[in-house]
Amino acid sequence: MTPNMPVARRMADIQPFHVMDLLARARRLEAQGRDIIHLEIGEPDFPTPAPIVEAGRQALADGHTHYTPATGLPALREAIARFYQDEYGAHVPPERIVITPGASGALLLVMGVLVNPGAQVIMADPGYPCNRHFVRAMEGEPVGVSVGPDTAYQLTPDHLADTWTERTAAAMVATPSNPTGTLTDTHSLKSMIDFARSQGGNLIVDEIYQGLVYGERPMTAAGLSNQVFVINSFSKFFGMTGWRLGWVVAPEPYVRELDKLAQNLFLAASTPAQHAALAAFTPACREILEARREAFRQRRDVLLPGLRALGLRVPVTPEGAFYIYGNSTAWGEDSFVLAERLLEEAGVAVTPGIDFGRHGASQHLRFAYTRDIPVLEAALERLRQWLG
Amino acid sequence: MTPNMPVARRMADIQPFHVMDLLARARRLEAQGRDIIHLEIGEPDFPTPAPIVEAGRQALADGHTHYTPATGLPALREAIARFYQDEYGAHVPPERIVITPGASGALLLVMGVLVNPGAQVIMADPGYPCNRHFVRAMEGEPVGVSVGPDTAYQLTPDHLADTWTERTAAAMVATPSNPTGTLTDTHSLKSMIDFARSQGGNLIVDEIYQGLVYGERPMTAAGLSNQVFVINSFSKFFGMTGWRLGWVVAPEPYVRELDKLAQNLFLAASTPAQHAALAAFTPACREILEARREAFRQRRDVLLPGLRALGLRVPVTPEGAFYIYGNSTAWGEDSFVLAERLLEEAGVAVTPGIDFGRHGASQHLRFAYTRDIPVLEAALERLRQWLG
Repeated sequence: MTPNMPVARRMADIQPFHVMDLLARARRLEAQGRDIIHLEIGEPDFPTPAPIVEAGRQALADGHTHYTPATGLPALREAIARFYQDEYGAHVPPERIVITPGASGALLLVMGVLVNPGAQVIMADPGYPCNRHFVRAMEGEPVGVSVGPDTAYQLTPDHLADTWTERTAAAMVATPSNPTGTLTDTHSLKSMIDFARSQGGNLIVDEIYQGLVYGERPMTAAGLSNQVFVINSFSKFFGMTGWRLGWVVAPEPYVRELDKLAQNLFLAASTPAQHAALAAFTPACREILEARREAFRQRRDVLLPGLRALGLRVPVTPEGAFYIYGNSTAWGEDSFVLAERLLEEAGVAVTPGIDFGRHGASQHLRFAYTRDIPVLEAALERLRQWLG
Repeated sequence: MTPNMPVARRMADIQPFHVMDLLARARRLEAQGRDIIHLEIGEPDFPTPAPIVEAGRQALADGHTHYTPATGLPALREAIARFYQDEYGAHVPPERIVITPGASGALLLVMGVLVNPGAQVIMADPGYPCNRHFVRAMEGEPVGVSVGPDTAYQLTPDHLADTWTERTAAAMVATPSNPTGTLTDTHSLKSMIDFARSQGGNLIVDEIYQGLVYGERPMTAAGLSNQVFVINSFSKFFGMTGWRLGWVVAPEPYVRELDKLAQNLFLAASTPAQHAALAAFTPACREILEARREAFRQRRDVLLPGLRALGLRVPVTPEGAFYIYGNSTAWGEDSFVLAERLLEEAGVAVTPGIDFGRHGASQHLRFAYTRDIPVLEAALERLRQWLG
């Protein structure tokens, strides 16, 4: 930035995804004819389920292209409320559900409503990189807490008690977590909600990978308390990444504030996407989504033992999302250099730990099992040969 | 907000659209069987043009539902660049065009990149209400400059010279303006761009109503300088409100910053919407859009003399957008009360001046000619009878 092209100070603290540079390099290699296996992308390879696509096409044919209310299409808020009831036995009135342009829009609103300049937001390190940038955008201070295998890479009530200060506005939990795929438990979650509220703050629970839990039955923080912010999305489980649609469940007194901010910051979420999403809860679609969940589980069950056998240390089995986050020091010292070498020399693209924080960042890599099993097996074979 | 439900201070300065309360009241009246004519809505009644809808449906059928790059689909950035070239003779390389979720997304990015806490952004009062809230969201200070008929409700180079301080980061111009429908001229615009740059700041030009100019040929600030931010949208002229798609043309050194912020704050704009928008520039679609522009002109030419004849003072003829902003003191003292009475007693919904700022707010009303001519004539008749 030249001196007479001034840029706001926050931008110095807002990092691009480092994996984007890697992705650009991968594209150049592909343009040269190299075959690259992409395990760096946090986006399922599955297309949007046919019933949702069909509902989207029908919505367009029916002329559903005008604005909806800022809080979203009433019918979609009601459908999500029913989903909480039917799936989790959680009573969440539609009035507490605000539809947003992706989980990103939900995070923007929640941070805008909760975070004063200088206020702190506690979050796990490693964690989803955008979280700290949403806080920084609002002139708040993200407080990363180093988490490791001992707590399944999750914040605990003890972490909150140790880290909470008078300046703390909120703490964030992601379950399943990106990048680790690990879960928190109901008891911890309830304790953290209560602790945050007892301090006059709030807990924000990111459940955008909620539908993708293997082994145990997924749960929702919205069923534990009506005093918690829950972020969710149609992107990952429902397969609607490019449509940009998510939601937030908010404590009732905050809904009016979220509405006000939504009116001003984005007017409303995409109308065709909202109509399409109504089909996400139909039995036909749920059947497809359950089959995909099972496919993800099978992929994990191929990639995880394969990587462990090659020396990646994954001390806590990831029970959700579609990520494996492992200690890669057996393969090389610096995981960023390692990611570059794996791309260039083995033709396998993965995400370096640095994209998820500072704690142990250079010792870890994230693998996304967003590709089919034969591709995962080919990636394992390439790694095996590269390791020699 | 209860004391133990804390909310960020900025929210006290962020206002909802007052017209939303009016709209809710209108809906209640309609539920009781009353017929209400809606002239308060800043959204054309036209559906999205068929070629765009068809391209959207095709994109869905073709599986275009994954993320695009944060800066947008390369083909769409190129199409917009060609549009600037063909339509305005302006050379804007695609690399300087960033696709956003609506003009809202563009304003969020630009404010995020330019506005430090405490930095000032100069803007016209009356003006688009969200502008000051985007500045406030970034902890900046919106500086409203009272503008009136003497400058066609537009900021001028003199206003900038008088108002600019060491704390000023940017000034905003909207042409055509919401709520006034008035234009600035090329000479003023160029002077304001140069002045802002000479002060180490930037001019942001809102051109979201750019395609809707009657009488004279529309122009673009992007053709005057490569040192200006230009905000545009597929919502108004292109008829894609609910799709949530816009763009920003940025000075080259800022593009990387906008990209970084977009990656973090919203990942990308809607993929189906971006594919659909490619059809907006086809001859078939342009023909539809030109016919609509002519329809808007005809509507203005019915509503404007009609309102003037009834006593609404509109000293500067609105040459663009689809708004008439007039002094309503001949009808009543307080335009907010007046808007309530017009709704309840005459069955005509309009927007009170308070939604657009403070300057003369209680003396003005905004009428949107987003309805067909027979509806506008009916509204005029209702007003005539109500005025007795």
